[in-house]
Formats: sequence, structure tokens, C-alpha cells
Amino acid sequence: MTKIHLPLNDRSYDVLIERDLLARAGDVIHQLGLRGKVCVMTSPTVKANYLSSLLPGLENNNFDVHVYTLPSGEETKSLAQAEKIYSQLLDWHFERGSSIIALGGGVVGDLAGFVASTFLRGIPYVQIPTTLLSQVDSAIGGKVAVNHPLGKNLIGAIYQPKVVLVDPELLLTLHPREMLSGFGETLKFSLIRDIAFFKEIVHERKAILEIRDPHILKTIITESIRIKANYIAEDEFDSGLQRILNFGHTIGHAIEAVAGYHKIRHGEAVIKGVRAAVELSAEIRLLASGISSRILEFIDQLPVPAIRLNIEEVMQRMSVDKKVTDGKLTFVLLKNIGEPIIVTNGLSEYSIHEDQMREALLHVCS
Amino acid sequence: MTKIHLPLNDRSYDVLIERDLLARAGDVIHQLGLRGKVCVMTSPTVKANYLSSLLPGLENNNFDVHVYTLPSGEETKSLAQAEKIYSQLLDWHFERGSSIIALGGGVVGDLAGFVASTFLRGIPYVQIPTTLLSQVDSAIGGKVAVNHPLGKNLIGAIYQPKVVLVDPELLLTLHPREMLSGFGETLKFSLIRDIAFFKEIVHERKAILEIRDPHILKTIITESIRIKANYIAEDEFDSGLQRILNFGHTIGHAIEAVAGYHKIRHGEAVIKGVRAAVELSAEIRLLASGISSRILEFIDQLPVPAIRLNIEEVMQRMSVDKKVTDGKLTFVLLKNIGEPIIVTNGLSEYSIHEDQMREALLHVCS
Repeated sequence: MTKIHLPLNDRSYDVLIERDLLARAGDVIHQLGLRGKVCVMTSPTVKANYLSSLLPGLENNNFDVHVYTLPSGEETKSLAQAEKIYSQLLDWHFERGSSIIALGGGVVGDLAGFVASTFLRGIPYVQIPTTLLSQVDSAIGGKVAVNHPLGKNLIGAIYQPKVVLVDPELLLTLHPREMLSGFGETLKFSLIRDIAFFKEIVHERKAILEIRDPHILKTIITESIRIKANYIAEDEFDSGLQRILNFGHTIGHAIEAVAGYHKIRHGEAVIKGVRAAVELSAEIRLLASGISSRILEFIDQLPVPAIRLNIEEVMQRMSVDKKVTDGKLTFVLLKNIGEPIIVTNGLSEYSIHEDQMREALLHVCS
Repeated sequence: MTKIHLPLNDRSYDVLIERDLLARAGDVIHQLGLRGKVCVMTSPTVKANYLSSLLPGLENNNFDVHVYTLPSGEETKSLAQAEKIYSQLLDWHFERGSSIIALGGGVVGDLAGFVASTFLRGIPYVQIPTTLLSQVDSAIGGKVAVNHPLGKNLIGAIYQPKVVLVDPELLLTLHPREMLSGFGETLKFSLIRDIAFFKEIVHERKAILEIRDPHILKTIITESIRIKANYIAEDEFDSGLQRILNFGHTIGHAIEAVAGYHKIRHGEAVIKGVRAAVELSAEIRLLASGISSRILEFIDQLPVPAIRLNIEEVMQRMSVDKKVTDGKLTFVLLKNIGEPIIVTNGLSEYSIHEDQMREALLHVCS
């Protein structure tokens, strides 16, 4: 069993990564000291495919199991849905020692974690992510949230799970676009980490996206989580260093918003955002053009759907977003593979002209 | 300035207690490193009496101050109200570095703290409690919450403030029943602490409740906070030792619920709960009758409104409550002043018969 420890004072926990871990989840959770009532929150598809692998292990460990099936889709991540869950948990007489298991992708994990963080002032929860995106990214680090009509993830908390159980076998049934979406975050991790990991994902692209070799998936997922875990350990409350993880996201979020969330998956938008950030890094002569070409060439082989977007709208959206973040337009750019830097426009030695920005957006918006 | 430090790892903070501290709040908060936008949440009455003392200090320190006035009353502590506040804060472009000041009693503090704990995954907040109850109890320890239709404080978090500013001068305009309500918690603290503090509140009863001598108020408040702070420091997440602070509350909560929350104030119900718990302690021969008489004699001098309640209903309510706490009916009882013990019916050497319970409830229900 591969174990990555997150050292977070009294909130420390492990991420365990292993094939067929789902069936052993009940044992692991029992060994951690959880007892009594547990609510498995899941989506209809995941329920159909995987719930039956989880339940026997929970029942063998004498958990009193309840299942709550959430509607699919981002709209589920609402305060109204959270309220329905609170009422159901109270109706089942859930207590402070009861716990929640999030069995699903980012929507399930974020919402279940939010409910866990606020129900009876916080009850224990466990993440069992079932998508590549949630395995390498959203299930790690304790960011939980629901959406607000004015924006995604605006209501939430940083509330760490008791353990994260990552089973690469769960990815075998995943939709190809969902695999690609998760791959977008892995691509991001590789570019901020080092050339070796970038070379590895270039080399293993087919094994990951097409063959889905569980052994290679495990290796790639483990390395991605290790990278993220280092940032979380240094900056749990996202007050500085974690901003590096936004590489590709300033532009990616704007693309996502302008395209419409139902038209493009988060990680697909991140791939476009990474592509634009790499081009921008080269435009302002931060990154050598030989290296940027090599990265762009790889990205352009990925089957990311083309969506025609109005560049001015994307730029407008970025400047709206900045108002609700830190008042300045900030990009994570690359000096080299493994050398990300934060460029705050007007505050650093590098400045970005609007025309350079347009140039960098040209390819991903057409 | 009196300072009580709460050592809670990376969540440590101070409670500052001083006359006329309200006017200096802006300086204190600025010195802590808070900057930019701040939302003062308050109630109509407190706003009319005290907002003008707080604002100049904030403005002198260049805070961008917004005021949000909450409707009075327990119904305000709802998820629906929290949603309205989120929207308003977003409309004001509040960011992760912006902060909230709770200027009010328990309702304002609990709701403002809950919003702070969940807005943009948590923003800093400051407690400036304006009632005796919130100064000695609810503003200390980071318990924040809103109510659910099925019960009080069921949705919430443990989320510590950056500082708590306690100004005894703010109590001079408080309604006498509000003073008595806070005094109920102080009475509780004294009985679980030691004979010296109990003697002190007996001796100073008039100075506290009638004369409201700010010097004596400061002394009594400081001692109460010191007692609570010790429990919080030992058991921040309320997983054991903090249960001692429930002395008088198992019965008090039931009385509150049966009487109706608008008929009796929380601390008044606690006084009745403490009285019944003391009688029960004597009934089961845990507490010497000489000591119980001395306590009861003092309690019976307090101007707690008599409310006729059905004893069976109160007993029924206690057994409903136990289901949402820990599955067993638990009381904090007294072996002596300063010697509380937790008695879980059926699990300890002491057992409580229903008739003893009825006997103990007789006086407070008539």
C-alpha cells in the first residue's frame, strides 16, 4: 500500500493509494477508530458501478450504513442540497461520532465534505474519489464547498478528511473526457514540478488515457498527489505558496465561465489555460521558445474539444474574477519546466501587455 | 488591559478585557494585522447604543467599514439569513483578506462567526460581545452555528476568532433579565470551579446585577472567562472534558424547549437547570445536604421568573435530546462545590431513578 502522509498538526492524515482499495475501505476506516452510523454519499452512476464493492467491508466492521444518492451535476453543490442532507442525517439520528464517506468525483466530495464540516459543528469524513480529477486534486487538501449563484465554491471551508482512499481501478469505467479532464491537472503538476515527471506523462499518455494501465495510473496518480501534498503541508490555508497550484487556472476559469460549465470540463479548461499560460510565458520572454514549443506540441496532441470563444469576453472575465480574489490580476507563469513564478501585473519585473495576452489566448479561443 | 490567552496551536488567540475597550477596537484589530474591508454585524439595539463608539477607531485605521444590521431574535440564526449575508458580502466585493466583526450578543456572534467560517472557505472574524452571557460564555471558544428547524445550533463549526474584545461598560444598558441570564452561566462556572468563586458571586450579587459596578463586573467576567478558557484549551473540539461545562444544561435545555424559547432566556433556564442538578446531586447522596441547601438558598434569591411546566414533558424532552447527543442520558452533577462529575445513567456507580428526577424537577417546574 502506498501512503502519503499530510502533516497538518492535529488535522494530519494519510492518502492511501492501492488497487482494489475500495473493498478494504471498511477495514481501514474501522482501524482509524470510526464506529457507528456512516452515510455514504454518492452519485447514481458511481452507486450503480461501485457501491456493492464498498458495502460488505463496512457491514463486516459493524457500521450502521446509510446511503444518500445525490443528483449528478454541478447544480447539486448548493446550500439548498446541503439543507436536504442535514434534515436526512437528523432524521437518521446521526450524532457527533457518526461519519460521512464521499464516494464520487469532485461534486460529491466537495458537497459531502461541506456537510461534514458544518453538521453538528463538524463530523469525521472520508474521501473515496472515483475520478482522475478528484484522485489527483480535489480530494486532497480539505477544500470543501458549495456554489453560490454568484460563483463556484464561494461558500465552504478548509476541513480535512480522516483519510483519502485512492483506488485506480475505479477509473476503468470513467468517461474518456473525464480521464482527459483529470489528466489536465496532472499535466499542470508536471510542469510546475520537473522535467522528469513531464517526460513521464508525455511518454505514458496512451497508457494513461487509452489503455488505462492500472499500474501506470497508480504511479502517475501517486506522483501527482505527492506534489499537491507538499504544497498543502506548507500552506494548508492557501495563504501563499498554494497559489502556484493555480498554474493554468486564471485563464482556465475564465474559459470555463465564458464557454459555459456544461460545455467544457474543468480539467479541459485547465489544459487550455496551461497552454495559454505557456504561450504567455514565451511571449514575455520568460520561457525559452524551444521549451514552450515542446510543451505546446504535446498539448496539441490531446483530444481537447475546440470551442470558439470571444477573446475580449475571456479577458473581461479574468478582470472580473480578480475583484473577488486579491484585487490584482495574477498569473502563474513558467521560467522553465519545474520553475513556476507568480507574476502580478504591475507589481513584478515582468509586465504583460494586453496584446501579448490576446496573442496567448488566440489558439485556445479558436 | 487584562489578557487571557487561548493556546490552540495555529488557532491561538487572546481574550482582552477592559473598560472602554470598544473605542480602541480599531487599533487592536489593526495591530493584529487585519486590513481592508470589514463588515460590522450587529443588532438594531446595539447599533443604536454602541456603533458610534466603534466606528471612529476603525476609520482612523483606514478600514473600509460596512455595517450589516441583523433582525433581533433567535430566528435570525438561520441558513436563509446566512445566504442573504453571503450575497451582500459578495456584492460589496469582500475578499479572503476581508473580515467580520460581531458586535452583539449570542445570536449575532454565532451567526457572524458561522458566516466567517464558511465565506470563501473562511475569513477572519472578531468577537465584541455586548451581553453578559456572550462575554462570559458564547463568544469564548469558537463555537459558531445557525439553527435547523429540528433544533438549535445543529449547523455550525468550531472556528476560532482572531481576538475577543470584552468591554464591561457595554453591560450598563443591558436589560435586567439579560444580566440575570449571563449570571446563570457565571453561577455554573463558580459551582464547577471552587468555593472561593462561589462565595464571591454570592457576595457580589447586588454589585453585579443591580449596581453593575464596572470594576466588579470586570473581575467576575475575567474569572468566568478564565474557567471557560481552561476547558477550551484542554478540549477545543468538545470531545470530552468540555462536557463539564454542560452542568445545568441537560435539564436547562429541556426546560427552555418545553417553556418556549421566547418565554425564558437561556441563562434563566440554566439557573433552573443548575438548581435541579444540585437537588438531584443531593437526592442520590452525591452531595452533602448542607452544601446543597446553601446553594439552593442562594439560587432562590435570584429573580428568575416562575414558569409552570409539566414535569413529564420536561423528562420526555430530555430523553429525546439524548438521541441527538450521545445515545445515553448524561448529567453533570456535583460531589461538592468545585467537584463536578459526569454521571451517565446506567454506566456509572451512581444511578438515577425516575422518581428522584421528578423530585429534583419539582421546584423548578412550579
